[in-house]
This record gives sequence, structure tokens and C-alpha cells, in this order.
Amino acid sequence: MSTMEATAAKIIDQPIVDQLVAHTSVEMEEVNKLLLSRVGSHVQMVPDIANYLISAGGKRLRPMLTVAAAMMFEPKGQQHISYAAAVEFMHTATLLHDDVVDESDKRRGQDAPRKIWGNAASVLVGDFLLGQAFMMMVDAGNLEALGILSRSAAIIAEGEVFQLTNAKDANTKVDDYFEVIKAKTAALFEAATEVGAMAGGANLADRSALKTYGAQLGIAFQLVDDALDYGGVSGTIGKNVGDDLREGKMTLPVLHALQNASTTDAQFIRENLGNQDASEKAVSRVVGILQSCGALQTTLDRAYEHADLAKAALAPLAERNGARILIEIADYCVERAA
Amino acid sequence: MSTMEATAAKIIDQPIVDQLVAHTSVEMEEVNKLLLSRVGSHVQMVPDIANYLISAGGKRLRPMLTVAAAMMFEPKGQQHISYAAAVEFMHTATLLHDDVVDESDKRRGQDAPRKIWGNAASVLVGDFLLGQAFMMMVDAGNLEALGILSRSAAIIAEGEVFQLTNAKDANTKVDDYFEVIKAKTAALFEAATEVGAMAGGANLADRSALKTYGAQLGIAFQLVDDALDYGGVSGTIGKNVGDDLREGKMTLPVLHALQNASTTDAQFIRENLGNQDASEKAVSRVVGILQSCGALQTTLDRAYEHADLAKAALAPLAERNGARILIEIADYCVERAA
Repeated sequence: MSTMEATAAKIIDQPIVDQLVAHTSVEMEEVNKLLLSRVGSHVQMVPDIANYLISAGGKRLRPMLTVAAAMMFEPKGQQHISYAAAVEFMHTATLLHDDVVDESDKRRGQDAPRKIWGNAASVLVGDFLLGQAFMMMVDAGNLEALGILSRSAAIIAEGEVFQLTNAKDANTKVDDYFEVIKAKTAALFEAATEVGAMAGGANLADRSALKTYGAQLGIAFQLVDDALDYGGVSGTIGKNVGDDLREGKMTLPVLHALQNASTTDAQFIRENLGNQDASEKAVSRVVGILQSCGALQTTLDRAYEHADLAKAALAPLAERNGARILIEIADYCVERAA
Repeated sequence: MSTMEATAAKIIDQPIVDQLVAHTSVEMEEVNKLLLSRVGSHVQMVPDIANYLISAGGKRLRPMLTVAAAMMFEPKGQQHISYAAAVEFMHTATLLHDDVVDESDKRRGQDAPRKIWGNAASVLVGDFLLGQAFMMMVDAGNLEALGILSRSAAIIAEGEVFQLTNAKDANTKVDDYFEVIKAKTAALFEAATEVGAMAGGANLADRSALKTYGAQLGIAFQLVDDALDYGGVSGTIGKNVGDDLREGKMTLPVLHALQNASTTDAQFIRENLGNQDASEKAVSRVVGILQSCGALQTTLDRAYEHADLAKAALAPLAERNGARILIEIADYCVERAA
């Protein structure tokens, strides 16, 4: 067995996320260097907050997707590195602003930056990172890719405003929910894989396939997140379970239950939606309702459907470098909530 | 007298701001149309908030500067219109985020958007407008101009974080203050006039002159704002006077007084800096101290110096279309606080 075959065999043995990490490790090293070089500021609070989020715990799934999308084709120069770094900065900016918007105390199991440095700093450092993301894109010199990322920035924000408008509104429709998650989550996944494909020099059809892959993966990813917020299909109660309930977010598990649970149970959910002080006992009962009326399983089923659409989009490109990993990642994204 | 001469004579009779408005009115009509077409969203809260700020009361000084800078040369097509609209969107996004950062209740004499729609919506609609600003710049198709505006977005945010870091810190230096206002205010003025000149096809020397003009005007503008926050040189007590004191902002009037007022007076200022509940009586006494120790006059003197630098930058271009208005605007910006 050649060294290369040995390496390949070794990669295949690992869980799929580790395979993605190994597959993109050389490029992600470059991405990380670029990120670190761009959070620098003599205003110490800027790198403090940015590094707190960027260095600590993040999976860097989105920039890995950009790099992996590029590697399926023939990336030249550093464009895919710049795009990946810009995607990660946009994501980090979104996290900083989301925590302020949701008044969250925790992020990735740690104190949210706004708990340490305050809301004001979180808003401003998010703005700084957004500006830096666009500067990196300008340096990369491709107007079309810049258009894709700036459009996704506007779409993400618009989707989050829509989500805000729907909060605690029991008349929210399932279609509204899908519109929200396509905008707030899938838009960046979609942009990440599309600009990756562009940096790889993909033709229009292949670029469109990667764009679809990213969009569908993003939808699946958010569906799973929304199921996990109620403990996943198993309904396991852990920390942060019930955050969406307390914030009044009209996610699919809740929407499904409001339509399918008994009148009494639906009423109980309505009473607790948006109640910041809902007790653990109340959350437990809501989780029980969601589980028994099939809301969590239905959410996961929908996630599998979108993961399948993501995989189908890449099927014609399955023989390309690393495509298998991207295809398998789709299932992994859903299984974490099973 | 020809119609054109009559129009010119009529314009010269008017106060200088009205002259700028008249000079740029045809182009600003286009800018306004573009702004309105770009705040559209089926998520009603987006145009509601954006129009509340954009339609109501704003002077639109920054986009007028972009248009006027372009008109000094030979603007072709719609590029100067797009740039001006992008500048106004960036400014509006900054206002939305600033109100959240400063916890302000008032904006342009009306309730701040965050008082009506909340902090969350203000943060998100600001992000939406930033995304739209970059999309407009992408549509305009000039990477260099995009680089200038995205860099200014990062600089503005960085400057505001620096201001936050300095809040209530009596060790803040005058140099720190100037660094903050160059970033948080002058950077956008500078970008506004530079991209305007670019859209007009200015050569590098003329573009650099317009860039300097914008930067110096922006510094003068903020110095004046900071004097006005304590009632201007006359120390007139009106609504919003003392906001900076209560927020603990280390502006030049305060920095000057801390160094030049009596020990007792300086101590009184220190005690009230950052005290959200400082009484009107306390604010009155601080204003009295700032006035008697020359802090407000010094601030205005510095503003005149920077206005002079702005005027000097345009002197070699004084014969160009509308240059006289831009030159006179510099003095006007300062006189409003005299």
C-alpha cells in the first residue's frame, strides 16, 4: 500500500467530521492564519472578543465547506482561503449579533461574549468583522463572489427580522418557518459552497450543484438544531434545552405540536411560548408533548429529506476529490439529533 | 440675465446648506428613489424602521457630499448615485447600532427606533442595510470603491469599540479622542467624498484632495457635535444636553476641563461622568465649568482648524462646479455651535 493509499485508508476509518477536518487541514491552516491576521487591532477588545469566539470551540464547518467545495475542482492561488475566512467572519459576526438579539447567556457552552464584554461591544465587534469580511473579499478581487456574500448578509438579517416578527405568534405557518431558516441559516451555507466552487473554477452547472448542496445542507442543519433545542428525538433534557421555547421561537417542533397535540397540550405550549421564566418542569412537559405527538421525529424526518436533496445535488460529482466526504457529512448533520 | 444665471443668483442668495441641497437636488432625487427601492422587504418591519430613519428629518449630508464631489468632475452613468445611496445606508446602519450601543432614547428629536421596535430589530435592520449597501456597491461594479467603503465600515466599528473602552476613563488622552472621532465619524465623510470623486473620474491628486476634504470636514463636524452636546459655546441648556456626560464619553470638552478646571471642578466632572442619573442641576454645573474654563471655545477652535484644513484641500479646485459650496459648507458646519 502506497503512503497515499495508507493516508486515504486512514482517513476513511475516521468519523466523517474528522475526515472533513483531515481533508481540509492544510487549507484550513491558511484560513486560520488569515483570520488571526485580520482580527488584529490596537483596540484590545476587538481581538479579545473575536478570538474568544473564533479560537474557542467552533467547528468551522462553514469555511471547511468552502474549502472542500473548491478542492472538488482546481483552486488556484489563495482565493478559496480568502473566501473561507470571509465566510467564517460573517458567521462570527452573526453569532455576536444573535446573542444580543436573543439575549442569550451562553454560546458553545461558555458565557456568551455579551455576558463578558456587554451588548455594545458585541454589536460593534460584529460590525467590525463584517467590514473585515468584505475587505478580504475585495482583496480576493472577484465582484461576483462579493455579490453573493453581500446578498447573503442582507438575506440573513432579513430572515432574522422575520423570525422576530413571528415570535410568540401561534398563527405562524410552516412555510414561514422554512422561509426563516432558509434565510437565517441556509443562505450562508449556500454562499459558502457556491463561492468555494467559484474559487475552484467550477463550471456553471457544477457551481449550481454546490450551491444547492449548501442550501439543502443548511436547511437540514437548522431543522436538527431546532429539534436539539428540545433534546432531539430522544427528548433528552440537558442544559440549554427549552431556550427556543422561552424566546418564543416558532420552530417546526412547536408548529407541528400546536397542530397535532391535544387541545390541552397545545394550550400548555402556547402558555409557555415566550415565557422567559418557564420552569424546568414546564419545559420537561413541553418536551414530553413534542415527543409524544411526533413533532421531534417529524422535524428529523424533514431534516433527512433535505439532507437527501443535498446528497442528490452532489451525486453527479461523486467521483470528484473529497465529494464523498461532503455527501456523508449530510447524514452526519442529521444523525447528531437522532 | 439668462435663466441659468438667474438660477445661479438665486442659489447664491440662500443659506449654504440650501445651496448644497439645490445644487444636488436632481441627483439626490435619484438617490432617494434608489434608497426606497432597496429598503423594500415583505418583512414589514424592515422598511418600517429603515424609512423611519431615512425619510424623517435626516439632512442626508453624507450622500450630498458624495454627489457634490462627483459633480466637481464628470460623473458618467449612475455610479455616483449608487455610491451616495450606499453611503447613506451605511450611515443609517451606524445610527441604528449606535442607539443600541449608547442606549439612546432619542434620535433626531424623535423616539429612537429601538424605543419603538426594540434593540433586536435595530441591530438586525442595521445589518440588513449594511448588506444592501454592499450589494449596491457590487452592482456599481468598482472593486476599489468597494474596498474604500468596506474599510471604512471596519474602521467606524473599531473606533466605536475604542470609544467604549475609553468610557469613564479619566486617563484618556486628547490623541485618543482624535483617533476615535477620525474613525467613528471622519472615516465615512472621507469615504463619501473619495468615492464621489472616483465616480466623477477625478485624477489621483484631485481624488486625494476630496478625500482630505471629507476627512477634515468629518473631524470638524464631530468636534462641533461634541461641543453641542454641552450646549455649544454659549452653553445653552436644551434637551439632550449632557447625554455624553451621562454616557461617560471622553470628548474634548471634558478632557480639556479635566486638565484645565480647578481641582474641585474637575473632581465634580469626574463624579458625574458616566452617571446615567446625573441631575439637570449637575449637568448645568458641568456646562458652566466647561464654559468658564474655555473647554467649549477650545473645542470650537479646533473645529475651525480642521474646517480650514478641509477648505485648504479644495482651494486648488475652487473653480470647479460646486466647489465653492463645499468650501463654504465647512464653515457652516462649525458655526452651528458658535
